[in-house]
Amino acid sequence: MTRLTHFDKDGNARMVDVSDKPATGREAVAGGLVSMKKATLEMIKKSTISKGDVLGVARVAGIMAAKRTSELIPMCHPLNIASVDIDFDIDTKKSTIQIVSRAKVTGRTGVEMEALTAVSVAALTIYDMCKAVDREMIISDIMLLEKRGGKSGVFKR
Amino acid sequence: MTRLTHFDKDGNARMVDVSDKPATGREAVAGGLVSMKKATLEMIKKSTISKGDVLGVARVAGIMAAKRTSELIPMCHPLNIASVDIDFDIDTKKSTIQIVSRAKVTGRTGVEMEALTAVSVAALTIYDMCKAVDREMIISDIMLLEKRGGKSGVFKR
Amino acid sequence: MTRLTHFDKDGNARMVDVSDKPATGREAVAGGLVSMKKATLEMIKKSTISKGDVLGVARVAGIMAAKRTSELIPMCHPLNIASVDIDFDIDTKKSTIQIVSRAKVTGRTGVEMEALTAVSVAALTIYDMCKAVDREMIISDIMLLEKRGGKSGVFKR
Amino acid sequence: MTRLTHFDKDGNARMVDVSDKPATGREAVAGGLVSMKKATLEMIKKSTISKGDVLGVARVAGIMAAKRTSELIPMCHPLNIASVDIDFDIDTKKSTIQIVSRAKVTGRTGVEMEALTAVSVAALTIYDMCKAVDREMIISDIMLLEKRGGKSGVFKR
Amino acid sequence: MTRLTHFDKDGNARMVDVSDKPATGREAVAGGLVSMKKATLEMIKKSTISKGDVLGVARVAGIMAAKRTSELIPMCHPLNIASVDIDFDIDTKKSTIQIVSRAKVTGRTGVEMEALTAVSVAALTIYDMCKAVDREMIISDIMLLEKRGGKSGVFKR
Amino acid sequence: MTRLTHFDKDGNARMVDVSDKPATGREAVAGGLVSMKKATLEMIKKSTISKGDVLGVARVAGIMAAKRTSELIPMCHPLNIASVDIDFDIDTKKSTIQIVSRAKVTGRTGVEMEALTAVSVAALTIYDMCKAVDREMIISDIMLLEKRGGKSGVFKR
Repeated sequence: MTRLTHFDKDGNARMVDVSDKPATGREAVAGGLVSMKKATLEMIKKSTISKGDVLGVARVAGIMAAKRTSELIPMCHPLNIASVDIDFDIDTKKSTIQIVSRAKVTGRTGVEMEALTAVSVAALTIYDMCKAVDREMIISDIMLLEKRGGKSGVFKR
Repeated sequence: MTRLTHFDKDGNARMVDVSDKPATGREAVAGGLVSMKKATLEMIKKSTISKGDVLGVARVAGIMAAKRTSELIPMCHPLNIASVDIDFDIDTKKSTIQIVSRAKVTGRTGVEMEALTAVSVAALTIYDMCKAVDREMIISDIMLLEKRGGKSGVFKR
Repeated sequence: MTRLTHFDKDGNARMVDVSDKPATGREAVAGGLVSMKKATLEMIKKSTISKGDVLGVARVAGIMAAKRTSELIPMCHPLNIASVDIDFDIDTKKSTIQIVSRAKVTGRTGVEMEALTAVSVAALTIYDMCKAVDREMIISDIMLLEKRGGKSGVFKR
Repeated sequence: MTRLTHFDKDGNARMVDVSDKPATGREAVAGGLVSMKKATLEMIKKSTISKGDVLGVARVAGIMAAKRTSELIPMCHPLNIASVDIDFDIDTKKSTIQIVSRAKVTGRTGVEMEALTAVSVAALTIYDMCKAVDREMIISDIMLLEKRGGKSGVFKR
Repeated sequence: MTRLTHFDKDGNARMVDVSDKPATGREAVAGGLVSMKKATLEMIKKSTISKGDVLGVARVAGIMAAKRTSELIPMCHPLNIASVDIDFDIDTKKSTIQIVSRAKVTGRTGVEMEALTAVSVAALTIYDMCKAVDREMIISDIMLLEKRGGKSGVFKR
Repeated sequence: MTRLTHFDKDGNARMVDVSDKPATGREAVAGGLVSMKKATLEMIKKSTISKGDVLGVARVAGIMAAKRTSELIPMCHPLNIASVDIDFDIDTKKSTIQIVSRAKVTGRTGVEMEALTAVSVAALTIYDMCKAVDREMIISDIMLLEKRGGKSGVFKR
């Protein structure tokens, strides 16, 4: 069984040393799902076509959070992200919003955590902006969908 | 249909004005679930009894993130949180870790977002610390479990 | 001649001691102006009616910055802002966007700096989002418009 | 008419992808102006020659803010700034302080926003430190003065 | 033997719950010492009387850090600090700079950590600004000197 | 006598321009000491073998603070740290905990301040978690122990 790389041989948490890795192009895609009442989804859809745009605010929040991932996740390396974007896909039948975020960097370590953080904070922002009308929204299916670059090569879920 | 309170009558996003609300005791409990391979859960359990403690690091990350909720979620009010704690419940059969966070404040608005942020960042930290051995972990069931205080009274899921 | 309150009698910078002041309702309104080429303003107006919304992003940036004022301005007190909003007024003839921000708090010190910071960062965000098409935009007229609450009473420019 | 680069083809805000750009030397110079009562300027001049140094504090604030530009401006890339400096030029006749900031980086994108943010926060700090004696100060003429490096070459206002 | 209050009965770290404590006036004074070569101290003294002011920059850094204490120290409560100041006392004979910081708040918990953080970051800033000429400076004697307010009453070292 | 590099020829504070330096491997080791009552040290030792782990929390705090050094120390350059670790050495006889932190980067400037910040914040966290039982703990001997890479070569204390 492999050892958890974020601990040294004495079991102490540490940032993994990436100083010997080359700086290469890396990319990660993460997804998540917000489920809600039909009436809530209708309000979000309406807001998106008017000026009050729930998903627009959630997108900005997710992008800004991706840039601060290393402040939130203790053992994450600071990275100069080259790009982040976030897409929302509304499923009226299932009454859900699918969130997908793609992050890129040229660096010594991957951007999975940045993409996952973008998705999580975008989802939390949707919750925040709609919680007055629907406290029972659920955030789920936060997961890595794709990863390219680095020693471990391509991963596709 | 109620209006989304985070938008003014012209549909512009804004922080809701809470200046006329009294500062009262408020409390929120949120939950979340991390699912993983059995081997991953075994490694986390081992780390928890030795010095390298995945869940200990995740707890610190979640508590620290709760304090920065208003920096992450655009329309959240800054709050002087009175307490946050985070509990983990390992289910070996289902190969999951249930995360529960409880936040308290004496303030003009609730602490749901703080409890939900604590859970989300604790879950992301577990992912980060184990991703080298298990990229397919899934974070789900992030939801509000309980809420007390404020005009809207007690909510229990 | 009055002494600058942010310095002690030896001339050392310090945060003014507000511990003896009562926590009362306070409000401030600040304004600013962004001037640009006519073509740039047309692009912003178009973006505002479609999904890509320059002013929507600038509003979120300004509100989020207001909450972090005490991290940016060295002698500013941390405040639990009760509300912030930002309005934009497009003047097609003059080819300008007027920004107005209103901040409120119940606290021991005023929120002028929060309103001014919201305006400044909203203006910088407009610049950032349009700089690829117009490097010569100018930000001006950043000033306090109104202030209520606290010992010094009402100020109106 | 060029498209705003901070939006994708569907009009969604995003960080522009700079992963294919080479990391090259870049430099930007930005300026701004603070206008005030003559008595206020006299106090600032006095403070500058004694220990209580309004402009010294404003310079530190501006430099520190430049390093946090990507936290404030939603679509700005995080950059490892190589240098920032800030100069003040007092004009006693016009009763103004001219602020000029120069930022440098070796990176995939320019440092205009860093220089502009340094100027803006230095100006806000001057306002904050003098607002008890002069609420009517005005910040204006915040603009890009110069830019070198990158595909677009030299720009001089 | 008393239990460490930052852990619950199962030994899990947590923020201590202060929601039942009254918000009262509290104050703390902390000290620290920076020892250096005589030549370094001479340079600092010279800088303090000219425009380039090592101690002025260190004072601003310490005050700003005090406001962010709860972001740095995991179990610290966020506090709306009412004031912070920092004094430096140069001892030419011993070739040291004594740093003393005083913090005040009206809140549910004390400001010891804020005063200690102000001293620590001011000391680190002195080190940073002089490290090119003296790498062997030592920071020592960081300790609480005084504390008032709250249940535990007055403490004086 | 050498000039302090953090000031320009007019004595104004500035970030040193490192844009002409090559990005090379750099490393720094810093140390610090926390002295306390014997009973306090016993409690920390007990906590370390149970789940409530004072030193585990202090390690996470120190690592996270190292990543934010450039936000705290005004003239520090932002760096993409490649690794940080922190070790604790308990001396029961002297009733002290020795803290050692090692930081690495591939960059244009050294990581001394990152290692020193990690040590300082880890020490402050130990103080915070034990202050309810021992207010008189002292932090001392914060110093650079080792430095490699860059123009100035190897330094060993």
